[in-house]
Amino acid sequence: MSLAVPTSAEFPVLAREGLVYLDTAATSQTVRPALEAMDRYYETYRASIHRGVYPIAAEATEAYEVARRQVAEFVNSTPGETVFTRNATEAINLVAYSWGRANVGPDDLVLISQMEHHSNLVPWQLLGCRLAYIPMLEDGTLDLDEYDRLLERSPKLVAVTHVSNVVGTINPIAEITRRAHAGGALVLADGAQAVPSLPVDVAELDVDFYAWTGHKAYGPTGIGVLHGKRELLEAMPPFLGGGHMITRVGDFESQWAEPPAKFEAGTMPVAEAIGLGAAVEWLSGIGMENVREHGRDVTAYALERLSEVPGLTIHGSLDPDVRGALVTFVLDYAHPHDVAEILGRQGVCVRAGHHCAQVLMRRLGSPASTRASFAVHATREDVDRMVDALGQVHDIFG
Amino acid sequence: MSLAVPTSAEFPVLAREGLVYLDTAATSQTVRPALEAMDRYYETYRASIHRGVYPIAAEATEAYEVARRQVAEFVNSTPGETVFTRNATEAINLVAYSWGRANVGPDDLVLISQMEHHSNLVPWQLLGCRLAYIPMLEDGTLDLDEYDRLLERSPKLVAVTHVSNVVGTINPIAEITRRAHAGGALVLADGAQAVPSLPVDVAELDVDFYAWTGHKAYGPTGIGVLHGKRELLEAMPPFLGGGHMITRVGDFESQWAEPPAKFEAGTMPVAEAIGLGAAVEWLSGIGMENVREHGRDVTAYALERLSEVPGLTIHGSLDPDVRGALVTFVLDYAHPHDVAEILGRQGVCVRAGHHCAQVLMRRLGSPASTRASFAVHATREDVDRMVDALGQVHDIFG
Repeated sequence: MSLAVPTSAEFPVLAREGLVYLDTAATSQTVRPALEAMDRYYETYRASIHRGVYPIAAEATEAYEVARRQVAEFVNSTPGETVFTRNATEAINLVAYSWGRANVGPDDLVLISQMEHHSNLVPWQLLGCRLAYIPMLEDGTLDLDEYDRLLERSPKLVAVTHVSNVVGTINPIAEITRRAHAGGALVLADGAQAVPSLPVDVAELDVDFYAWTGHKAYGPTGIGVLHGKRELLEAMPPFLGGGHMITRVGDFESQWAEPPAKFEAGTMPVAEAIGLGAAVEWLSGIGMENVREHGRDVTAYALERLSEVPGLTIHGSLDPDVRGALVTFVLDYAHPHDVAEILGRQGVCVRAGHHCAQVLMRRLGSPASTRASFAVHATREDVDRMVDALGQVHDIFG
Repeated sequence: MSLAVPTSAEFPVLAREGLVYLDTAATSQTVRPALEAMDRYYETYRASIHRGVYPIAAEATEAYEVARRQVAEFVNSTPGETVFTRNATEAINLVAYSWGRANVGPDDLVLISQMEHHSNLVPWQLLGCRLAYIPMLEDGTLDLDEYDRLLERSPKLVAVTHVSNVVGTINPIAEITRRAHAGGALVLADGAQAVPSLPVDVAELDVDFYAWTGHKAYGPTGIGVLHGKRELLEAMPPFLGGGHMITRVGDFESQWAEPPAKFEAGTMPVAEAIGLGAAVEWLSGIGMENVREHGRDVTAYALERLSEVPGLTIHGSLDPDVRGALVTFVLDYAHPHDVAEILGRQGVCVRAGHHCAQVLMRRLGSPASTRASFAVHATREDVDRMVDALGQVHDIFG
């Protein structure tokens, strides 16, 4: 094992008798340093940020902006290119509404991939432009030859996930971006699964927008992140109107603040930003290379153990080197919801359903599947517990 | 005193040596039961909601929907008419984007009042319709005769604050709504200041939309609320696209879930909703009539004490019966920022600036003022501390 596996001291829920939490791709456990950082805010310097002149307001402002720096540095972005949002979904919608409505007309094309989560699919449907899909090949990777042909149609934007939440594929974002830029398109990457599980370098990827979320990254609920290239954020009109995103409000028109303030209207999730800052500091302490290696190891073991289960089909590649820390599968004799419920009764928490990726599920020919995802606290023993629990599914349905 | 005043046992920050927190209109302290409810979620049943079939996911879903019921009941709304948002600002923007873009054209009129917070002003500027202002009279109340004349211009919407965050005026929302409806306009009320300080009955007010926020209502940051009449929410297109707000996602178009799910895209602020539910339960335990009476009492005392300060001008009515629990003032010899800073050094936390209400500040002829606002934990002694601290401002600038 490449990692001193965190325990219930760091993830309190894991202290629940017999609980094996394998649903971190839906939402992660929140690590104790994040909870403690939020408690410190709530218990010792709870105040509004940016507008208060008394000491605890200054303290709160400083803590919020330190969190922004921590979050930016964690993925090699900059504070001026880091906007806090409610979640990854809002981050992507912000781009669709603000950049999209100013730059993408009804006849313009946006490319998305067949493996997008609804959060990186429905906003582009709502934008009312033309959409085309980069297909997924049988091995779970994107068809980059077809991608090249689609780029010839001069899309305005390529919106693609960094790591699939269903087949686990780690997409070659830097290469996808290089080709998109050569064709004149911008790139938005959905990093919701990638940031908590891989080293991510937004500058190196050279993407124009990168969205992710705190609640999957060992942080609290209620906080997401959008990184955007500075010149794009500066040129974009505001999204939500309200306090803090303005410099002057006239009766009939107003002047906008500089980014990131321009996109942070009203009182932000202050405690949550501070909590996320603590969570990424904790991850940095472990080292994301180590987090990745641990996830790869547990995933490799899960692929091996699940391959031995009769009647079980794994979706996506069987090579742990090309996928994130999750495995999705179907049993030919039991519905995925029944599988998840029977596992849940035995304390093993896995997800069942369409994983908010109905386009991909149609491509895979399965309306639903069961997914196990592996956090920093997941172990090979957790995988054994899951495979043992599948025995009861077989006893009932097999 | 009409209320057993809560102390640092319920509001931990108040334990800070010498701290007098009079900035609750900007953000309130978070009450301990709200913090405890969030800790319970994070420490014992942290899981995703709505989509998980294992026991802690069911627990989390139940807690989130209980919170929705608590929040709805607190203002006599219904769960099916209660949408969680990030803050009041997002709640108002949701209406401006979703209802507004479907129902308000560039030549249509929206009425707002001169005393709106930027959160209920900038979204209507961004909508790109015509705007007209209901003027404020010298006594701090809205000019309802002029309002009647403005209604003859057939506005689509009247957007007005329930309680002013600057002059404190409690606006007659039920009467404003009766007249608006008679003229064929809908009404959105901004309840950010009202909900934590007055009994609010959304059904009785008969407003079409009512927005408020958790962080001013003794809840956590990161959570707001929009109440909307069911038939309006059903007819409105979605706002943010993503997971949970859909029933079926096709490659090129999708079907939307019923409200409130239709407006809750992606993973919501789960812990924060649970925390807000606990906060409003705690307020209900005190009784909002008692909260109002306490706020009225402390405000009356503040008006009395501040009236004795030479060179001090109070904005808005001097009658505590017609105003919420806050007092805004200017000193003729010191800038409001200096006032707030000198008070802050003495432990007295008050706000200075334009209070995100620049239109109103121009009307008042003051680009900035100092504001003291009175939470359930505020006391007459706190007012004395503030007035004493103003003595030092006089020593320096007077």
